[in-house]
Amino acid sequence: MKAIALKGRNICVEERPDPVPTKNEALIRVTKAGICNTDLELVKGYMNFEGILGHEFVGRVVEACEKEWIGRRVVGEINIPCGQCEICFGGDPKHCPSRMVLGIQQKDGVFAEFVTLPLENLHALPSNVSEIEAVFVEPLAAAIAIIDQIYPDQNNDALILGDGKLGLLAAQVLQTRTPNIFCVGRHPRKLALIEKRGIQTALDAGKWDRKFDFIVDATGNPQGIAEALCFIKPKGKIVIKSTFEGLAKIDISALVVSEIQLLGSRCGSFAKALEFLKKETLELESMVDVDFPLGKALEAFERAKDPEVIKVLLTP
Amino acid sequence: MKAIALKGRNICVEERPDPVPTKNEALIRVTKAGICNTDLELVKGYMNFEGILGHEFVGRVVEACEKEWIGRRVVGEINIPCGQCEICFGGDPKHCPSRMVLGIQQKDGVFAEFVTLPLENLHALPSNVSEIEAVFVEPLAAAIAIIDQIYPDQNNDALILGDGKLGLLAAQVLQTRTPNIFCVGRHPRKLALIEKRGIQTALDAGKWDRKFDFIVDATGNPQGIAEALCFIKPKGKIVIKSTFEGLAKIDISALVVSEIQLLGSRCGSFAKALEFLKKETLELESMVDVDFPLGKALEAFERAKDPEVIKVLLTP
Repeated sequence: MKAIALKGRNICVEERPDPVPTKNEALIRVTKAGICNTDLELVKGYMNFEGILGHEFVGRVVEACEKEWIGRRVVGEINIPCGQCEICFGGDPKHCPSRMVLGIQQKDGVFAEFVTLPLENLHALPSNVSEIEAVFVEPLAAAIAIIDQIYPDQNNDALILGDGKLGLLAAQVLQTRTPNIFCVGRHPRKLALIEKRGIQTALDAGKWDRKFDFIVDATGNPQGIAEALCFIKPKGKIVIKSTFEGLAKIDISALVVSEIQLLGSRCGSFAKALEFLKKETLELESMVDVDFPLGKALEAFERAKDPEVIKVLLTP
Repeated sequence: MKAIALKGRNICVEERPDPVPTKNEALIRVTKAGICNTDLELVKGYMNFEGILGHEFVGRVVEACEKEWIGRRVVGEINIPCGQCEICFGGDPKHCPSRMVLGIQQKDGVFAEFVTLPLENLHALPSNVSEIEAVFVEPLAAAIAIIDQIYPDQNNDALILGDGKLGLLAAQVLQTRTPNIFCVGRHPRKLALIEKRGIQTALDAGKWDRKFDFIVDATGNPQGIAEALCFIKPKGKIVIKSTFEGLAKIDISALVVSEIQLLGSRCGSFAKALEFLKKETLELESMVDVDFPLGKALEAFERAKDPEVIKVLLTP
């Protein structure tokens, strides 16, 4: 099969043998995949990953020991826990210390014609979910996880820092809980996408001359938290979605004196994301700039690096 | 009256006029006061404070328009909010942006023969609370506030980083909720104080080869959080009590991937601390190394700076 592998810091289009599913796994034909910011970070050296890239995807099961899965259109959770340790038994397998992570840690990803995943990772898709919406299920789940960390209500206001994919998703998701959503970014074209939904946007948070109950740092850079600390109310919560190489410098005394909470936030529930898509209509298809065939992955990655681009898809 | 004032970075023993209470204030004769780590930080330049130092105290009311207060033995909350702003009306006056803070911000403190405080800041002391216990009410309230941030139960374990006053108080307070308390410090003599209560102690957290549900950073230095991140379980909570000049360097990606929470924590409820003292017996009197007369404040501050010393008191 054709596959896009990371070797050192080089992205290679390769021919590889089709993967062989183990007893509990399905073999899935990937029908569409998305390039995520994490993929760009992996290429820079984050996690020291080597192997087939990619973790956002939709596909169709072609082989599985539980025959009812065969032919189903699916999305798949990206964490593959050991299932044997204290943390797995404790009910939080996505934090299993020996976990593999699809296309991120010790497990070949989805930028390929086929991928294998444990059956328990799969979610069958209802027919109302389009191929493009399906590719957004993983980041949408990550955005919905914010709600379960801060419990916003309609009296709260929330500021999203960053107009990348996750920032735009977080703004739209939080808007279902409170009308008072503000988003700061660097790209008027991206901000326009959510501005038309009634979300207030700016290139500088100072424009509003106010502070916020909740701030989501989706900047992807070390300056995001320092900026968040300038605009958070006392006892406010800052949800951090940014991952990057290196350390951030933080004014801890400000955090203590104003009793601010910094909440690390990673993955979310696919089941909740699919429920969400039943009820809500989001700007998802309009976030896609371009859809490349898998063989043009090098070109696709170049486009994905362009700060003006929101989402690049790959179709095997 | 005699008073200990901070001028620039110099501590001065001075004669000052007795303070005059406003209509809503009491005039209090200070009977005992404690030197806190924050006082040492103020002398180094924290908050750019100038004026009479000190915020931990017990005293007796000598003048007040509500006559029932006169003669009462009292402790006093340290935040003096404006009472007029959105945050005060919102029910969280200790975060009032125009607040004064006793001996810390725009309000003369308690290292003096007399101090004034609003009547609503005062708590009358039951006779069972000793003078020394009373001086500990403010830091004890700050330690009890941790419980309301992390809700520990007996299945949780908690690590306290730091064997200063606040670390020793936090360890004892958390021990009332779970038997699994561990404390790391640099001073065997200080650790021995809580070790005799069944709290496990070490000079290096690596000794236990385990991770913890909750960690309290009471180190007072920028390295505390980095150490906490090494020993926290996924989804664990780190309560930060350390304030210091300058910035701390933090591995934000570790925070995000393991979904750690960093919770800034400042003051607590005096009422809860007084309730707590009714039920629990803590090592408080044994934390006091020495009690100086007010006139020997310079010597007292020198002793308080000694890393081997736990608590220094001042008696006007």
